[in-house]
Amino acid sequence: MTQLAENNADGHDVGVLISQMKLFDDIGEALRSRFVEASQMRLVPKGKILYLQDDPADWFYLIVNGWIKLFRETLEGSEAIIDVLTEGHIFGENSVFEDDSYSYTVEVIENSLLVAFPTSLLKEAIASNNQLALNMLTSMSRHRLQQHREIEHLNVQNAPQRIGCFLLRLCRADVQGAVTLHLPYDKTLIAARLGMKPETFSRALAKLKESAKIRISGPTVYIDRVESLIEYTCNHCSTSFPCDDLK
Amino acid sequence: MTQLAENNADGHDVGVLISQMKLFDDIGEALRSRFVEASQMRLVPKGKILYLQDDPADWFYLIVNGWIKLFRETLEGSEAIIDVLTEGHIFGENSVFEDDSYSYTVEVIENSLLVAFPTSLLKEAIASNNQLALNMLTSMSRHRLQQHREIEHLNVQNAPQRIGCFLLRLCRADVQGAVTLHLPYDKTLIAARLGMKPETFSRALAKLKESAKIRISGPTVYIDRVESLIEYTCNHCSTSFPCDDLK
Repeated sequence: MTQLAENNADGHDVGVLISQMKLFDDIGEALRSRFVEASQMRLVPKGKILYLQDDPADWFYLIVNGWIKLFRETLEGSEAIIDVLTEGHIFGENSVFEDDSYSYTVEVIENSLLVAFPTSLLKEAIASNNQLALNMLTSMSRHRLQQHREIEHLNVQNAPQRIGCFLLRLCRADVQGAVTLHLPYDKTLIAARLGMKPETFSRALAKLKESAKIRISGPTVYIDRVESLIEYTCNHCSTSFPCDDLK
Repeated sequence: MTQLAENNADGHDVGVLISQMKLFDDIGEALRSRFVEASQMRLVPKGKILYLQDDPADWFYLIVNGWIKLFRETLEGSEAIIDVLTEGHIFGENSVFEDDSYSYTVEVIENSLLVAFPTSLLKEAIASNNQLALNMLTSMSRHRLQQHREIEHLNVQNAPQRIGCFLLRLCRADVQGAVTLHLPYDKTLIAARLGMKPETFSRALAKLKESAKIRISGPTVYIDRVESLIEYTCNHCSTSFPCDDLK
């Protein structure tokens, strides 16, 4: 793990980054400065395991750019992907409520620039700064709703619809007509993120292409009429496009 | 909905019930009294819809006894069960972070005794009482881990293993050898809770009976050797029996 001097990399300023994080909204300048001072910028290469499930949790992270995946491993060795996160997301912060250990393994899947903050400071600060506790509750609550939607989809949507939903969540809220998208990471990982075996994913994708008029070439997806995809997918969901959490 | 006089039903005392709720641990006697005074005991009959998804959220609830289910409905009418809860659980409290509306529909599935608390009081209190905010964070974090486990299972376990996990979570942590269990609610609902169509559930149950030496008669489940069931199920999970959150 590369730790850079003077808390900056690629011209990023930690103070500015922190001022954009909802977690730190209205917590006061003094506390915010403590987080800035205690932070470390880290450039982490693709393929690096940042930490393992059950490791002691010393740091939590903000993703400045790049991609990471959170997963858990079963006793017999399968990997269950819990989430794949990018720019603007934080992770590892929940460990302060979970015996100070991480509840999943994190692997960096594209070269990533991360800001690391000590969990000890977070733990101390939420105990005295009510606004920080409220910000964390708001963020956790939003996350919980996303998980509910995910459990709902695993329960009631078929595989092509789940891929359709994945694609729609990459679209802008005001999208109309023909759309071109770029897949954010490779298809094997998308399959795993959606809880599908590669062969299920291939069959489901073929079905989706036919049903919702979609073409895929490498990482590029061409959607003829996004309205058709919305109809095909969102009729089998309890919310409609665009999802509340993406507005 | 039956609202009972003097805040009691079946001899339950709200003050005592509240003193057992982790949510109210160490929040101070004055605030606790305000919750007691503002609470209402409600006996709600089986089949009653307590509230609908997107309804304005005026109350959150503690289950004293009985069973409720949380679900969301898709546009084309399928029901996705998010959770089935019983004694000691609270629900609806998250609405204070979700635009003061409920994010799922709640149906009472067995006659239930509930204590209702105003969400307005909760909202006001977490903004000023840091301990209450911390208690809520702890509870939400535990819930999040359970959801991660659920997403993991939907991703990596097959249907018989998911039923096995459901049964094991009904067992005591120190269980050994032969075990007799009672299903907490009917098989159709268990199937829906596990995200399975009834026919998938039947096939999976048949497979589980054969693989893990289980017999079922009405609501009673006979497990010959719980160790076999643990091996069959928990090898396909990232944690082993007994689950951390049930200890």
